[in-house]
Amino acid sequence: MSERIPQIAIVLSGCGVFDGSEIHEAVCTMLAVEQSGCKYQCFAPNTWQARTIDHFTGHAVAIAGDEDNRNVLAESARIARGEVKDLAEFRAKDYDGIIFPGGFGAALNLSDFAVKGAECDVNVEVRRAIEESHREGLVIGAMCIAPVVIARVLGSKGISLTIGNDKKVAAGLEKMGARHENRAATEVCVDEENRIVTTPCYMLAGSIREICDATRNLVDEMLEIMDY
Amino acid sequence: MSERIPQIAIVLSGCGVFDGSEIHEAVCTMLAVEQSGCKYQCFAPNTWQARTIDHFTGHAVAIAGDEDNRNVLAESARIARGEVKDLAEFRAKDYDGIIFPGGFGAALNLSDFAVKGAECDVNVEVRRAIEESHREGLVIGAMCIAPVVIARVLGSKGISLTIGNDKKVAAGLEKMGARHENRAATEVCVDEENRIVTTPCYMLAGSIREICDATRNLVDEMLEIMDY
Repeated sequence: MSERIPQIAIVLSGCGVFDGSEIHEAVCTMLAVEQSGCKYQCFAPNTWQARTIDHFTGHAVAIAGDEDNRNVLAESARIARGEVKDLAEFRAKDYDGIIFPGGFGAALNLSDFAVKGAECDVNVEVRRAIEESHREGLVIGAMCIAPVVIARVLGSKGISLTIGNDKKVAAGLEKMGARHENRAATEVCVDEENRIVTTPCYMLAGSIREICDATRNLVDEMLEIMDY
Repeated sequence: MSERIPQIAIVLSGCGVFDGSEIHEAVCTMLAVEQSGCKYQCFAPNTWQARTIDHFTGHAVAIAGDEDNRNVLAESARIARGEVKDLAEFRAKDYDGIIFPGGFGAALNLSDFAVKGAECDVNVEVRRAIEESHREGLVIGAMCIAPVVIARVLGSKGISLTIGNDKKVAAGLEKMGARHENRAATEVCVDEENRIVTTPCYMLAGSIREICDATRNLVDEMLEIMDY
């Protein structure tokens, strides 16, 4: 049992399920970290969104290059009440864990998995953060669709992950070298060797209560690996 | 003890503490309602934000009338994952309670309290929703700065409210006819006669954990008044 209070980095990808971070997943993650007695710091890449979606109509109102498109760091700051840092400032040695909430932002802004699938590119700072975290022994958490980003960076290490039970996305994960395990909405997949914990959240969940349970389960498992 | 599952309307004012709904307060409210076994439906007025703030820099990037200013209903839809209704569709008879999370949106978009103080105007649909809810006997909940909107509409009824312990805002409430009671961050002020419950949240809170506690206390007190 470590004496040190674990410090958790939370990487956001905007603000809203259809073009950024899924807000319930991000907020419940922050809550679970605090309720576990740990501390968090939010980060986001300082880059433009792939697109901006009107969440009432579901229509795209701006795409990359448009003047009224939105910035990932500025939108993420809404969830973090301004207390968010540019991911370029992230140093793995200052943290014990790093968590990636879901939302389409993970597959549009942190990577372009939504467009290119298993051949996707990963944002350069996101890739660096994941590689550095893995190398330094941080526990990595990811939920909903965000495990695809982890798979693209660390898949060659034979990591195990879950995104629920979607066969197409699971096939994409396997193509990137990862092993997919089916899980229910609030269950977690624990890869103890590679120190990675994942949970399906809104890939399968139907209510915010399940998101609260899933994020708590994820944080609990991460802390167990940290021996806290 | 009623058999019917209470239906709670949640009125949002955008998406982000500086120009809309405070996201932690809104999400923790949704969570508290669900965890209590009740159901919620989000609403927001279909109107333009008073201004749009970059939450990373803190600077205004658009004001009312600008082409790139944001719509309250469309931004609220981000917190609600698209499941939000125009407040014009709200009918009090379909609900048992109505809750107003805080954030500057309450004082900028639902009303213009941030500009005009006690002489503020209230959005016409917001005023109607509050008056109709009060008349139909719904329990009204409000947190953070949102009680100023309730005070402006129902102050003449001698209601009791809290916004924490800010003397200037409290004086504004009293000027609108309401009685202010000091409360700590997670405590509630219960006006049983007028069926109104308020709590300070981020007017005083320093962490998301306190927001979780405050919103749970608020919902618990609302349900007690409903005899659920």
